Amino acid sequence: MILGIDIGGTSVKCGIVSHEGEISQVRTFNTAGWVESQGFVESLRVEIGNYLKDFPAIKGVGMGFPGLLSADRKRVILMNNIRSVVNSPVVEILNSSYPSVVFRIENDAKCAALGEHYFGENKGLDNYLMVTLGTGVGGGVIINKKLFIGGKGNATEIGHILASNGKTLEENVGISHLIKYAVERLSEYPGKSMLKGKEITPKVINECAVQGDELSKDIFKHVGFYLGEVMVGVVRTLDLDNILIGGGISGAFDFIVPEMRRKMEQHLPAYYTEDLHVARAVLGNEAGLLGAAGLIIEGI
Amino acid sequence: MILGIDIGGTSVKCGIVSHEGEISQVRTFNTAGWVESQGFVESLRVEIGNYLKDFPAIKGVGMGFPGLLSADRKRVILMNNIRSVVNSPVVEILNSSYPSVVFRIENDAKCAALGEHYFGENKGLDNYLMVTLGTGVGGGVIINKKLFIGGKGNATEIGHILASNGKTLEENVGISHLIKYAVERLSEYPGKSMLKGKEITPKVINECAVQGDELSKDIFKHVGFYLGEVMVGVVRTLDLDNILIGGGISGAFDFIVPEMRRKMEQHLPAYYTEDLHVARAVLGNEAGLLGAAGLIIEGI
Repeated sequence: MILGIDIGGTSVKCGIVSHEGEISQVRTFNTAGWVESQGFVESLRVEIGNYLKDFPAIKGVGMGFPGLLSADRKRVILMNNIRSVVNSPVVEILNSSYPSVVFRIENDAKCAALGEHYFGENKGLDNYLMVTLGTGVGGGVIINKKLFIGGKGNATEIGHILASNGKTLEENVGISHLIKYAVERLSEYPGKSMLKGKEITPKVINECAVQGDELSKDIFKHVGFYLGEVMVGVVRTLDLDNILIGGGISGAFDFIVPEMRRKMEQHLPAYYTEDLHVARAVLGNEAGLLGAAGLIIEGI
Repeated sequence: MILGIDIGGTSVKCGIVSHEGEISQVRTFNTAGWVESQGFVESLRVEIGNYLKDFPAIKGVGMGFPGLLSADRKRVILMNNIRSVVNSPVVEILNSSYPSVVFRIENDAKCAALGEHYFGENKGLDNYLMVTLGTGVGGGVIINKKLFIGGKGNATEIGHILASNGKTLEENVGISHLIKYAVERLSEYPGKSMLKGKEITPKVINECAVQGDELSKDIFKHVGFYLGEVMVGVVRTLDLDNILIGGGISGAFDFIVPEMRRKMEQHLPAYYTEDLHVARAVLGNEAGLLGAAGLIIEGI
C-alpha cells in the first residue's frame, strides 16, 4: 500500500494509491495552516503518522514538492511557496520517525509526468514532455521510460525558458499573466466579444472560444504561439516525439495546439515535427498525487 | 587498436587512436573527391580496408558524421553536406565487408563532446555541455558520464535554437554570419578600429581584440550575448554545471564568456549560475576524431 502526497502552495492533498492508480482515503489540508500551527515539516510528519496508524499496510510514501530538489532527493533546495521546508532534511526526519517505511520526494511537475507514465492512457510511450499549464508552467520529461532529471537533478524547468519577447513562458501564459493579457486585449478590442462584462478566467475564455468568440480563440492562440516557440528549443535539446498537455488551461487544448504546431513547424525540420504526437494529459488534478505514489512503485 | 574517422563537409580525417588518446597514421581526404570518384560510402569502405590491411590489429572503427542519426546508430538520416550517405545502411555495409571489426557511428558534435570526455583535461566531469563554435554551432552533452542523445537520438542540436531576435544561434554566431556581422558593424562604426582595411576573419578579430580594439571586443560580446541567451534555455532544460567551449571562434574565449555569463545571470537564479564552470575545450580540431575513437573504447 502506497501513500501519495501532492504538496502545493495552497493545499496539501494526501491519498492511498493502489497499483492500478485508484485513489482512496483522500485528506486535504491547508498549506498555510500547516506552516502556522507546528511548522510545515512537523505537520507533515504528524499527518503521515495518522495515516500509518489507520493503514499499517502502507509501505511507502511519495511526495511532490513545488520546488528544486537536491540531486540525492533528500531535501528541497529552492521553493518560493513554503520557505521553511527549504534545506530541511525532510526525508531523514520522516525516516527516523517511521524507519520501516520508504520515503521519496520529487518535484511536482516531474510527479505529474510520472503520474501519466504509470497511470495515464499514454503509459506505453517511450519518451514525452508533459507540460503543465496552470498558475505556474511546469515540465516533466520521460526518456526511455524513465524520469529525466538532467545533470544536477532539476532539468526541464520549461516555464522559465525565455520566449522571443524577453519574457519567460510562464510570464507569457501562466494563468495570472494570461488573464492580464486577456483583460488588456479586451479593453482595446475593436470588435464585439462575448468576454465583455464577464469575469475573465481561463474557463470563461474557453467557454466563449467554444461558442466561436474570435477574441477568446485569439487569446489561446497567444498561448500556442509562446508554447510553440519554447518547444522549438526544448525539442532541439531533448529530441522528443510526444508532448502531453495538462493543467488548468489545458481545457483549451483544441485552441492552443494548432498555433503551437504551426510555430514548431516554422522553425523545425520535418524530422522533429512529422511524427510529433501532441495529446491531452488525462489524469487532470490527480496527476501529481498519482505520480508521487509512482515514485514508490518502482522501488518496492 | 582503434581507428577514428572525423567526417566533415570539406575533408575526412582518419587516424589510429591509442587508449591514451595519441593519434598516429593520420590520413586526410577530400570529401568532394570521395563523393565524385566511387561515391562516398564506397570510398569510405575502401579506405577503411586500406587501414585494416596496413594495421590488422584494428579491432574497431568509430566515425563522426555531421548530421542526424537513426536511433539505432546504423544510418545517417539527415545531412546537408554529403547527401548520398543519407539513409545508406553504412554500418551494415562496413560490417559485411569486415565482419571481425566493430563499427560505430555518431553525430560529429557529440563526438567532440565524447573526445573531451575520454581524452580532455576535463574528463572527470559528471556532466557538461560542449559547444562547438565554428562554421556550424554544435552541441554535445555528457550526463552522468554518458553521452546524452535524448528521446529519439538527436538531442542537443543547440545551434538551431532560436535566440530573441528570431534567428538561430548559428545564424547569429556561426563563422560566416559572424563575419557578415563584423563587416556591417565596421562599415557603420563611428570610431577608429584596427579592423579597418583588414580581411575579416575570426582570427583577425581576435588579434585586434587582444590589442584592445573596442569594436573587435564588441563583436565577440555579440557572440556571448546570443550564446548566453540560448544557454538559459539549455541549462533550464538539462541542468548542467559545466560548459566547455571549442571550435574555431573559441580562441576568443576571454572576450565571449563574460557577456555569456552576464546574460545567464540576468535570467537564471543563483542555483544554476553560482557553481557554473565555463572552460575552454582542450582538444581543438582533434576532439571529433578522438571522440569517434571513443565510441569504440567503451565497447571493446
